[in-house]
Formats: sequence, structure tokens, C-alpha cells
Amino acid sequence: MKTYIIGHQKPDLDSVVAAISFAEYCKLKKMIDVIPAIIEDANDETKFVFNKFNSPLPQKISITDIKPEDKVVLVDHNEESQRLTGLDQNQITAIYDHHKVNLSLNSPIEIVILPLGSSNTVAWHLFKDINLQIPTNMAKLMLSAILSDTVGLKSSTTTNIDKEAVIDLTTLAGIEDIDSLTLEIFKAKSNISALTDEQVVLNDYKIFDFGKKVLIGQVETVEQEMLIVSRKKGLLAALQSIKERETVDYLILAITDILKVNTKLLISGVGETELIQKA
Amino acid sequence: MKTYIIGHQKPDLDSVVAAISFAEYCKLKKMIDVIPAIIEDANDETKFVFNKFNSPLPQKISITDIKPEDKVVLVDHNEESQRLTGLDQNQITAIYDHHKVNLSLNSPIEIVILPLGSSNTVAWHLFKDINLQIPTNMAKLMLSAILSDTVGLKSSTTTNIDKEAVIDLTTLAGIEDIDSLTLEIFKAKSNISALTDEQVVLNDYKIFDFGKKVLIGQVETVEQEMLIVSRKKGLLAALQSIKERETVDYLILAITDILKVNTKLLISGVGETELIQKA
Repeated sequence: MKTYIIGHQKPDLDSVVAAISFAEYCKLKKMIDVIPAIIEDANDETKFVFNKFNSPLPQKISITDIKPEDKVVLVDHNEESQRLTGLDQNQITAIYDHHKVNLSLNSPIEIVILPLGSSNTVAWHLFKDINLQIPTNMAKLMLSAILSDTVGLKSSTTTNIDKEAVIDLTTLAGIEDIDSLTLEIFKAKSNISALTDEQVVLNDYKIFDFGKKVLIGQVETVEQEMLIVSRKKGLLAALQSIKERETVDYLILAITDILKVNTKLLISGVGETELIQKA
Repeated sequence: MKTYIIGHQKPDLDSVVAAISFAEYCKLKKMIDVIPAIIEDANDETKFVFNKFNSPLPQKISITDIKPEDKVVLVDHNEESQRLTGLDQNQITAIYDHHKVNLSLNSPIEIVILPLGSSNTVAWHLFKDINLQIPTNMAKLMLSAILSDTVGLKSSTTTNIDKEAVIDLTTLAGIEDIDSLTLEIFKAKSNISALTDEQVVLNDYKIFDFGKKVLIGQVETVEQEMLIVSRKKGLLAALQSIKERETVDYLILAITDILKVNTKLLISGVGETELIQKA
């Protein structure tokens, strides 16, 4: 009998690190054969952080690896829609999370959900309660996860406990410059150098219907200025050709600097300028 | 701004004491103006225990006492169907419970649900984590609540942590004989001396349709023998007259000794005897 600790589908850094930190918590609670795992490939940001700190990623498992006698602990999510597809809810023995709850189960299990900026802040908080010494390498991963999930402690979900955790983990991890670590993480997260100009515009977009049809593309980056300076010509050409090809009246690309929390709009025609002035 | 700590509708002893014990926990978390409350009158068992230990019951509040700026902490329940009717879910800031979860909220809040035998064991467990000294009188109430909710540590939901809590609270409360405290509590809970024979039969019943219609009444008591000896004649007469009056084919009264967990059936006719032999 194994106990798998798993995060949500499309795992982000907080989810992957939470599998590791809560596996430690489960071991302390005398669970045996506890295995932190991921259910889909790690994203570029996660790979960057684990690589930077010479840590192996948790093993990847699929639904067929979970035997009927195994148990599962969910971290960083609780809703059924975000869970490993096909997971039998009767195998879930605990849930540790920081999101809003949307959950209906057949029997009582351990659930700890705290409204903090990241799942790893929940883990840190529980570790503090029981005086666990957090090992250096786990501190590095947890610190990175908290910085990532709270957008460098700038997200609206950031609490004083997240700030306290970051101070404590910075000492434990022996890291001196949090700002440059944050910048490195977000560069890895928002690395768009491999995308073509059309891919940048259409990577993440929504179409709105304001009487006229408006396509708004969204790029999140930590290199806003550089992106605009170096790729403006190509991006404007991409906007023009997409607009001609797709059946939309206006096309706007919003380029957001994640850390400075400011957005610049790239537009291609007269109509868009009018639209923005009216807004 | 006040923070009300409230249990479920039709409050039982565990729910009422949990309002008090978790109010203490909330104060430790620096919440201000924390008020344990009940939303309906306490039952006989609860009144007995609070009276025995010279403790005032929490104040009774209704939905109109909760102002829009107030906050509410739910204890011993999480489902909407068990909540104070009309409560705005956006005012709920925390939930502490030991039941299965069936919950959907708009935003993340603090939720601690542990699969233990009673809500007061959850409170005891959290107190231990933060080294809170439980005052003598609170220990008496918490001990009674755990004994009540776990049926004297005999229910199927009883865990080792419940047993540990009872040992610890017994010392803190300075109580010597747990068994006689348990018996006293259950006498108060199952006091049917004020009920007529017909009320005893129909106090808690279900009608089953097995081809023939069968009415099964259920009485829980700690004085099974005495009930059968002293009231058998009256109860049999009640069974007969109810059977004639109601349109049921069979009528059975199940008298369960809550603490010894055994059930005796009282039946009135030949048909019932045949039914039971077939089962």
C-alpha cells in the first residue's frame, strides 16, 4: 500500500513543490510509503527551479499506477474538475489547499484549507506548528513556489503569513537576493522567445463582442520593454495578418509586466485607437 | 464588528460545547469580540451537562442578530442544509468540523476538518498543537461532549485520538469516574419518562414497505431492562392501538441500549413474530 501525494492537472510550481512538502508532513503523521508525484509533465518554470536547485522532479504517475489498495492525498486543489481523471474519491485520505472549497465527499477525511497565498505557505505554517526543521533544499523549493504563486508577494492573495514564510525560508535556504530569484523564476515562466509572432498574439486570447467583435491577446512577461522594442515590427505585422484572416473587427495585444503589474497595449489600426480612447 | 461561533440547527451537546472551545481557539488567533452562541434551544442532555458543571449556556441568537459587518465561524457542521437559515455565506470566515464535507464557497477561508469522533476532539487536537492550557471547566464540558458524540468511546467513528483526548481531559477536569459521567449524560439524553407509551413508540419511527407495510419505532435508552420491565404492558397496548389506528400491517418497537449497543424488539402479534423469524 502506497500513499501518493499529488497536485492538480496542468501542474504549476506551487503544486509540484507542495507534493514534496506535504509528503514530508504526511511522513511526520506516520503515514508509510509516502510518494510525492506529478500527474502531467512539469512546465518550464518548474523545470527551471528544480534544475537550478539540483533537485529531482517528483515521479510522474498516471491513473493506472494507483492500485485499489493505495491512498491519495490531494494538494493545491480540492475540486473534482481539477483532479487526476478517473481517481476514486474513496481513496482520497486528506486534502491540503489554499483555494476556495467546492467539494462533496462520502465520508469524513482530513481537510486543511487556509486562505494563504500559496499551498507551500500552508505547509510552512503547519511545519511551524509542529516545530519541523525544514531542510535547506526543501526551503529553496518552497520559497520559489511561494514567490511564484504570490507573484513576488504582490498578488492580491498575499497575506502577512506569506511574507513571514518568505523571510523565514530565505534564511533557511541561505538565499541572499529574493528579487533576482523572483525575476529568474518569472523569466522562466514567461519565456516566449521560442514562440513566433503569431503565437505570441494568439497564445492566450479572448474574443469579446461589443457590437463589434474584438480579439484581445494577452502576454505576461518580465521583459515588457525588451519585447516591445525588439519584436514590435513583427508583432504588428502578425496583428495585421491575423485580423485579415480572422473574422474580427478589432485586434489588440495586451503586454503585461507581471512583476511591475503594468500593461501596455499594442494595436494595429485606426479603429483600435478609437476604441481605446472611448474606453 | 463581532465574530459569532455557531453550531448546527437542532444543536447537540458536541455542537454547543464546540462553540465555546473554538471561540477560545479563535481568540488565540487574535480574533476580537468572539462570541460563542447557539441558534436554537439546547436539548435536555446539553442543559443537564451545563447545569452539572455550573456553566452558563452560550447566548441564543437569531439571524437578525448578525449584522452585515459581523463574521461567523461554523463549528460541528459544514453543509448548507444544517446552517442557520438565511446566513450569508460571505460572512463565514472559518469552519471547524469532523463530518464529511459538502461545501461550495465563493472564496478561500480557513477550513479544518479532521476525521475524529467529535468536534471537541478536533478542538483538543488543535489546542495540543499550540500548547494551550485548557481551563478545568472547559475540560469538563469538552470531555462530556466527546463522551456523548462517541457514545462513550464506543461509536464506529471513535479514533485513538479521541481516546487520548478523553484521558487527557479527564485529568484536566479532575473527574474520577468516566463511566458514571457517561451514564449520567446518556440518562439525560434518553430520558423518556415524560413521554406517554404512544409517544415512546412514535417518537422516532420509519415505515418500510416490504410488500407488507411495517412501522418500526426506535427508542434509545441506557435503561433498557427497566424500560421493558416497568412499561412493557403499556407499550404493548400502545402498539396494538396504533396498529389498529394506522394503516400498517406490522408494528415493531426496537429498544436499543446505547451504551451496551444491543437492541431488543417489542412486538405485539403473531404476524410480527413470523416476520422477525424470517429476517
